[in-house]
Amino acid sequence: MSVTFAQGFSAAGVEAGISATPGKKDVALVVNEGPLTAAAGVFTTNRFCAAPVQWSRKAVADGSLKAVILNSGGANACTGKAGYAQSVATAHEVAGLLGTEDGEVAVCSTGLIGELLPLDKVLDGAARAFAALEPTMAAGEDASHAIMTTDTKPKTVTRMGSNGFRVGGMVKGSGMIAPQLATMLCVITTDAVVSAGQLQAALGAAVDTSFNRIDVDGCMSTNDTVLLLASGASGIEPDPDEFNDLIANCCASLARQIIGDGEGASHDIRITVAGATSEDAALACGRAIAASNLLKCAISGNDPNWGRIVSSLGTVPADVAPYDPDEVTVDVNGVRICDGGKPGHDRSEVDMTPRQIDIDVDLHAGTSAATVWTDDLTHEYVHINADYES
Amino acid sequence: MSVTFAQGFSAAGVEAGISATPGKKDVALVVNEGPLTAAAGVFTTNRFCAAPVQWSRKAVADGSLKAVILNSGGANACTGKAGYAQSVATAHEVAGLLGTEDGEVAVCSTGLIGELLPLDKVLDGAARAFAALEPTMAAGEDASHAIMTTDTKPKTVTRMGSNGFRVGGMVKGSGMIAPQLATMLCVITTDAVVSAGQLQAALGAAVDTSFNRIDVDGCMSTNDTVLLLASGASGIEPDPDEFNDLIANCCASLARQIIGDGEGASHDIRITVAGATSEDAALACGRAIAASNLLKCAISGNDPNWGRIVSSLGTVPADVAPYDPDEVTVDVNGVRICDGGKPGHDRSEVDMTPRQIDIDVDLHAGTSAATVWTDDLTHEYVHINADYES
Repeated sequence: MSVTFAQGFSAAGVEAGISATPGKKDVALVVNEGPLTAAAGVFTTNRFCAAPVQWSRKAVADGSLKAVILNSGGANACTGKAGYAQSVATAHEVAGLLGTEDGEVAVCSTGLIGELLPLDKVLDGAARAFAALEPTMAAGEDASHAIMTTDTKPKTVTRMGSNGFRVGGMVKGSGMIAPQLATMLCVITTDAVVSAGQLQAALGAAVDTSFNRIDVDGCMSTNDTVLLLASGASGIEPDPDEFNDLIANCCASLARQIIGDGEGASHDIRITVAGATSEDAALACGRAIAASNLLKCAISGNDPNWGRIVSSLGTVPADVAPYDPDEVTVDVNGVRICDGGKPGHDRSEVDMTPRQIDIDVDLHAGTSAATVWTDDLTHEYVHINADYES
Repeated sequence: MSVTFAQGFSAAGVEAGISATPGKKDVALVVNEGPLTAAAGVFTTNRFCAAPVQWSRKAVADGSLKAVILNSGGANACTGKAGYAQSVATAHEVAGLLGTEDGEVAVCSTGLIGELLPLDKVLDGAARAFAALEPTMAAGEDASHAIMTTDTKPKTVTRMGSNGFRVGGMVKGSGMIAPQLATMLCVITTDAVVSAGQLQAALGAAVDTSFNRIDVDGCMSTNDTVLLLASGASGIEPDPDEFNDLIANCCASLARQIIGDGEGASHDIRITVAGATSEDAALACGRAIAASNLLKCAISGNDPNWGRIVSSLGTVPADVAPYDPDEVTVDVNGVRICDGGKPGHDRSEVDMTPRQIDIDVDLHAGTSAATVWTDDLTHEYVHINADYES
């Protein structure tokens, strides 16, 4: 499935020896066979953005991409001019193979920050990925495996529009997931007949309510890239609203899968803040709760510790989210354990055995709501990030 | 030592059965015997501030306190009107014992959020602490033990002015330590002859560069309280600048001790950001780095992962801290491992065996600097906070 579900796309995932893990596929190639080459991108806002981000941001600026090459095993971030030259050389290699311009090729990298890539291996991997290109489901799966790092499973999505156009996508991301474009690397493809402008509008809105609303560890990556490519191969013009909804739906699914595979996580935590004076106010409250290490530890210990929920909520300034602490209610998995800022039902009544923990906060100050997702904080998260050099 | 180092103060620490730990002292009393009763306080800005904070903020508003009663074993936070009545009753009990007004007694509580205190035990503890009051060093030590929760050791400080006035203090705090008044409970005493206004000015400035610049887990407490009491018993009027410096020095020492006893910490991390356009810019950068779970995990694994330092630095908006990423240098324990935004010396050259890790960032954008402190993130932190109901 993945990026080859939509017509007009071929893909490959090959082993190029970049990753330190023997046998690990580490180069993916996604090629848009057309007839359209419309494209849109959203990138990290980190000021230390990686060389491939600097390159790809320029490459997609004209609304057109023929291909995306992605590697795991190295982020090529904080590598200066030499690193930028590597991204350019990689795009140049793929463009030569495809017979197109360098600027038609986006480059994505993920892995350790602060080291140059083994360029020979990357270029060799590009050539082998080109030779392996296929429009099959299996090739799409290979690509989704090749971009994994600490991910324990590939993350893909497919959706079909009511009049038959298709959307497919893949994402990698498990740690260094902050609420600003929390994704690492994502490629979504569609065979719908749409313009680059439509793609950018759909992607921007979709990212805002998906990748921008999940938080594994509050750490923003240097390499985050989300690309949306349209081949037009279906010949179908989608209803604009349906198209936007479908892209948002794909991003939401992929974001949810990132949370489900968060580093070391034993619980996925959905936090919905309702009764806010505005969506921004609800979002600020949700993010404050999602960022609490203390709460995330408590959840990993199956403790529905509402004191850690309200103490985080209490850090949001009153001008950002007006509410009266004495009116706030908190439900965990359907049990109201904080009622009007005071103890409600006993916390022992909450069933904490499900993987998904639902935290519902009502501020009783308005009619707006927002949902954010995070993971619990476990021994395994510390283990992964104390021992993995990423 | 502790709060009885200054003349004119007596203290006690007794076991009242509030704490779940058998034999744990859990009620402390500090009494200002005068002749002055000048006092100042700084409190949490959390909107879910605890009942004792609500009470004590009012009690100290007139610049006068005769005594402070503190308990561990329960925070009396998010307990509504019933909780507030408990704080009032506690102050009333102590005031009766001392023959003073209720408003002369501050109340501090720490422990689990969201449960009422066992009031009978608190009042009984107050009576027994009153009976045990002594101006001795041992009594001061008892008080510093009685306020501990997850702290593994008492934290105290003593300083003497050049003309003989004295300052002593105690603090508790180990987790739920955020850069906004990261302390939980702190009482500092002095026998200098100073006004309440002088105390408030000295304390506000001291807190700003000490408790407001440490970060264990980014979580702001509902109960944070710092009180400064002056007895005037030495009869000595201090030089105002020296007095301010000494109070700042005491707060810095206590803050440093909190970091040294951070929950589960195996490394204390000093982060100094220099070359900034302003102190606020330097502080914003330092705090962004100190908040990174990924960096804190890397340090616990003895990995001087500078990629996680600069990726955190890169989240600070350019209008908050102007700098050019290509100019930034990062030294860890004296080794320049990031030079001009690119790799410098190999990270293997950094000796990570010391308890204290020094991270020195130079933005090369100006002449201002700021230092913040944090701890590494360890398995033990997760263990403490997954299993301890606080």
